[in-house]
Amino acid sequence: MRIGFIGLGGMGQGMAANLLKAGHEVVVWNRSQAPVQVLVEQGARAAATPAEAFDVEVVFSILANDAATREVILDSGALEQARVGLIHVSMATLSVALVDELVARHAEAGLGYVAAPVFGRTDVAASGQLNIVVAGEPEAIQRVQPLLDVLGRKTWPVGAEPRQANVVKIAGNFMIASAIETMGESTALARSYGVEPAALLEILTSTLFAAPVYQNYGRLLTERKFSPAAFKLSLGLKDVGLALAAGQEKAVPLPFASVLRDNLLEAVAQGEGDLDWIALGQRSHKKAGLD
Amino acid sequence: MRIGFIGLGGMGQGMAANLLKAGHEVVVWNRSQAPVQVLVEQGARAAATPAEAFDVEVVFSILANDAATREVILDSGALEQARVGLIHVSMATLSVALVDELVARHAEAGLGYVAAPVFGRTDVAASGQLNIVVAGEPEAIQRVQPLLDVLGRKTWPVGAEPRQANVVKIAGNFMIASAIETMGESTALARSYGVEPAALLEILTSTLFAAPVYQNYGRLLTERKFSPAAFKLSLGLKDVGLALAAGQEKAVPLPFASVLRDNLLEAVAQGEGDLDWIALGQRSHKKAGLD
Amino acid sequence: MRIGFIGLGGMGQGMAANLLKAGHEVVVWNRSQAPVQVLVEQGARAAATPAEAFDVEVVFSILANDAATREVILDSGALEQARVGLIHVSMATLSVALVDELVARHAEAGLGYVAAPVFGRTDVAASGQLNIVVAGEPEAIQRVQPLLDVLGRKTWPVGAEPRQANVVKIAGNFMIASAIETMGESTALARSYGVEPAALLEILTSTLFAAPVYQNYGRLLTERKFSPAAFKLSLGLKDVGLALAAGQEKAVPLPFASVLRDNLLEAVAQGEGDLDWIALGQRSHKKAGLD
Amino acid sequence: MRIGFIGLGGMGQGMAANLLKAGHEVVVWNRSQAPVQVLVEQGARAAATPAEAFDVEVVFSILANDAATREVILDSGALEQARVGLIHVSMATLSVALVDELVARHAEAGLGYVAAPVFGRTDVAASGQLNIVVAGEPEAIQRVQPLLDVLGRKTWPVGAEPRQANVVKIAGNFMIASAIETMGESTALARSYGVEPAALLEILTSTLFAAPVYQNYGRLLTERKFSPAAFKLSLGLKDVGLALAAGQEKAVPLPFASVLRDNLLEAVAQGEGDLDWIALGQRSHKKAGLD
Repeated sequence: MRIGFIGLGGMGQGMAANLLKAGHEVVVWNRSQAPVQVLVEQGARAAATPAEAFDVEVVFSILANDAATREVILDSGALEQARVGLIHVSMATLSVALVDELVARHAEAGLGYVAAPVFGRTDVAASGQLNIVVAGEPEAIQRVQPLLDVLGRKTWPVGAEPRQANVVKIAGNFMIASAIETMGESTALARSYGVEPAALLEILTSTLFAAPVYQNYGRLLTERKFSPAAFKLSLGLKDVGLALAAGQEKAVPLPFASVLRDNLLEAVAQGEGDLDWIALGQRSHKKAGLD
Repeated sequence: MRIGFIGLGGMGQGMAANLLKAGHEVVVWNRSQAPVQVLVEQGARAAATPAEAFDVEVVFSILANDAATREVILDSGALEQARVGLIHVSMATLSVALVDELVARHAEAGLGYVAAPVFGRTDVAASGQLNIVVAGEPEAIQRVQPLLDVLGRKTWPVGAEPRQANVVKIAGNFMIASAIETMGESTALARSYGVEPAALLEILTSTLFAAPVYQNYGRLLTERKFSPAAFKLSLGLKDVGLALAAGQEKAVPLPFASVLRDNLLEAVAQGEGDLDWIALGQRSHKKAGLD
Repeated sequence: MRIGFIGLGGMGQGMAANLLKAGHEVVVWNRSQAPVQVLVEQGARAAATPAEAFDVEVVFSILANDAATREVILDSGALEQARVGLIHVSMATLSVALVDELVARHAEAGLGYVAAPVFGRTDVAASGQLNIVVAGEPEAIQRVQPLLDVLGRKTWPVGAEPRQANVVKIAGNFMIASAIETMGESTALARSYGVEPAALLEILTSTLFAAPVYQNYGRLLTERKFSPAAFKLSLGLKDVGLALAAGQEKAVPLPFASVLRDNLLEAVAQGEGDLDWIALGQRSHKKAGLD
Repeated sequence: MRIGFIGLGGMGQGMAANLLKAGHEVVVWNRSQAPVQVLVEQGARAAATPAEAFDVEVVFSILANDAATREVILDSGALEQARVGLIHVSMATLSVALVDELVARHAEAGLGYVAAPVFGRTDVAASGQLNIVVAGEPEAIQRVQPLLDVLGRKTWPVGAEPRQANVVKIAGNFMIASAIETMGESTALARSYGVEPAALLEILTSTLFAAPVYQNYGRLLTERKFSPAAFKLSLGLKDVGLALAAGQEKAVPLPFASVLRDNLLEAVAQGEGDLDWIALGQRSHKKAGLD
């Protein structure tokens, strides 16, 4: 199939490569040219404009945030020049408000829109083992399912409205941030009584909390590996903001998310915005004067 | 070995039975007589007073809370009549302040004190598969280790000061409460957009959050099984209070614990104190007008 | 002087009338026509478009929120058709982000922009006794000062950047909301012990808290006068959101504002968005099961 | 009348002196002797024990906290040796739980107990201008009213149960702490945009917030006068704790108090416990990286 791919960051690069390996014709676009060259060497064709990457049957996009998505997808003229009947599979973590706008604009242009945000980092994207949350019209999803199967180990359908997939992704990221804050507070408490954070977390992550998110972030926290950042704290602040904004639209108070926002803001104010967001877990130690 | 056992609630009953099965002579005491009879039928001897259960080499106690422990252990005269050299293994979830007092009182009486709170519910206690967090003087722990091996699948030593084990238990319970609140908020958010709580949690608890605490409590939350309570919400409020009190003594702010306390209090005010504490997770849904 | 006036809501109506009474020629514009007629009967001239009200020396605007301001000022073409050298005195409570955009757009068009949000309700506006917070270029402020003197009892200059006045207004509204929440929590606490809210507040507002905000809102709270709304709770939520957004831009955590947001959201979810925002103070009573 | 007076700290000293000036016979007791000598020189008689100061018709006490009150009043044998029919006017800021215990113990001993906590600092106590909140049996209050008139400018009766007066005092102190935090957050926000804290507070405390608590604490905050402490931050933490404990007993959530507790704890952890509690207002500035 002829496929477009927009956004060749750490995630997108691996995903586009997997589509190539699966035998598809892939037209790629990215703001900076270096990752484009990498893909071209693997057999992709470079698009001169986002619109060119929309001249296909199915286009994927995974851009950094709302602003980049607005610029590259909505303001570039891509939708107006797209092939009618095209399905756009949008994999970025976007705000509910922008997704609604994207859905409306795609409908006006006679295009399909499927939201398919993912859980997994760059290595998981490269190995095609992502967990993909998907929402949109069932027929559209059905059409792109074989491509999603190339990219992920499992697809999790959550509804017919694209924003439902984004809400799930936003909720998931909120849950991760809550787990980090929880570990930060509990290890600060333990440490104030002379119990090493690693000792506390070893017990809990071997038993009740034996899950990747606690084990992996717990290790980073106890080893104080805050850089290089796999996911920047400032992006975590953005994502918690997406949760709060989504909640506000439906009048859902999220008091934990409010605490997370305050603590992440404080971390940014203290110059920690570029650290990995596990640094949020260290905030409790600093507040308690333990560091 | 001649062993005392004080407190035959759901947890204590299974533990005392396991000590009997392991061939020990067990002298049991409990406020109400029914569970005493059960144990006597299994071969235990009934003590008329707590002091009688302290006339042994090692006595275990697992009482409901600070008040019961104060009454049965400190105010009953048991310590004064105990066999010198006895080791008291205290398995209850107690406040740091009370543990410090217990340690001092035992030292005055020439007795050993080992804190050994446990993770696991009644069925786990009955099968001898508890996770036991232990702290106290190394020699004392060493002496009771064979008995701990009867009661649990693993013993986790965390320090030489008994209260360190209690802090770990308190921190663990705080983490569970945080997980419940996190699931409550995230499912309320998802639900407000038409995504079923079960759908959200299935994705997360199959992947990043694939841990017993999320899987088990997540199921109870989505099935709205709030009674009968395996662990009452009012006890959860007490335990979060223990975390806050422990933090206060060392000037460790715990903002998540503060939110938990406020929400648990609200639940109690709304008549939910006797529900299972997973009902905390429903609070977010009620606040958002979803129920 | 020839003056434009845009936005004839409760506040604007009284202000425009005062400018007329002071002998100025006033060209008014409002979306709905009824208030326009009232002013025309008092001697104003009706503008057919916002642009027409910008064809003057000084134009005032006081619109409901960011969205109305964007539509009427930025998207109407008014700036492009305005008389060069005009000064726009913007009195609405706007976000810092929008003010920055307004400033830039006015500068491009060669127009002056003065931010002059006000403290005071409709009766205070009608009597020309507003407190006006002002920020912008000193020369521009100096030129409009005689007009501000017509509208208010006092002008409070706070800086050369227009957004500084908006930040003060936003901070002031946040302080009011905090006072309401404080009274809500303290009266709920007192009431739970059988002390009437009115009894508690009488003591405090006669002494340490003898200020209009506590006395007036305290009276509304104890009398439970939640409607008709002088200021809707949903607008209070919007204003607390402005504070949080302003804080976020500068990495200033505002934990009280976060609590306010959560509680206001809960009130909206419970159907109280159209009540006066003093109803926020009743939330604590409901949570505690006192109502 | 023959009067006892226990607790000659900054507050008690001025109050006892006023009772002497009003012509009463006053028997004073204090742990340290220096303030006793000051009063003796003014005509008081020194008591050797608290019990001796209870051998009167009416005894006043104003001790630092629960612990001191427990030791001096409950554990000293004073109640058992007191003159039957004596009325004890307790002016300290005590926990509701301790007040209940005091009431019961006084009743057992055939003594009257009136709670009469005060608003006002040492200079106000010295000038006899305190605001006195009073609760207890009406006949008992009536009997001591002439003495309260000596000590205060006004007495505010709030109920027949002594603890009701303590709850009012606790609620009042919570309100002060909330005002400080509110000013801290709002000035941090303003300052991040280049608006001086003093400029913001001048506007608000001249208008809506024209009350002593905002004016006085606002001045201390903008002048950064954090020591010497008129009221230590660590005592503020204690008082917010009293509010939370009182709320917990009645299941009243107090989210603002929870935030205050967390921020005060953080201040203590950062070594600010001995500063005046207005230093709480500086916390927001530190978190935002403004200091």
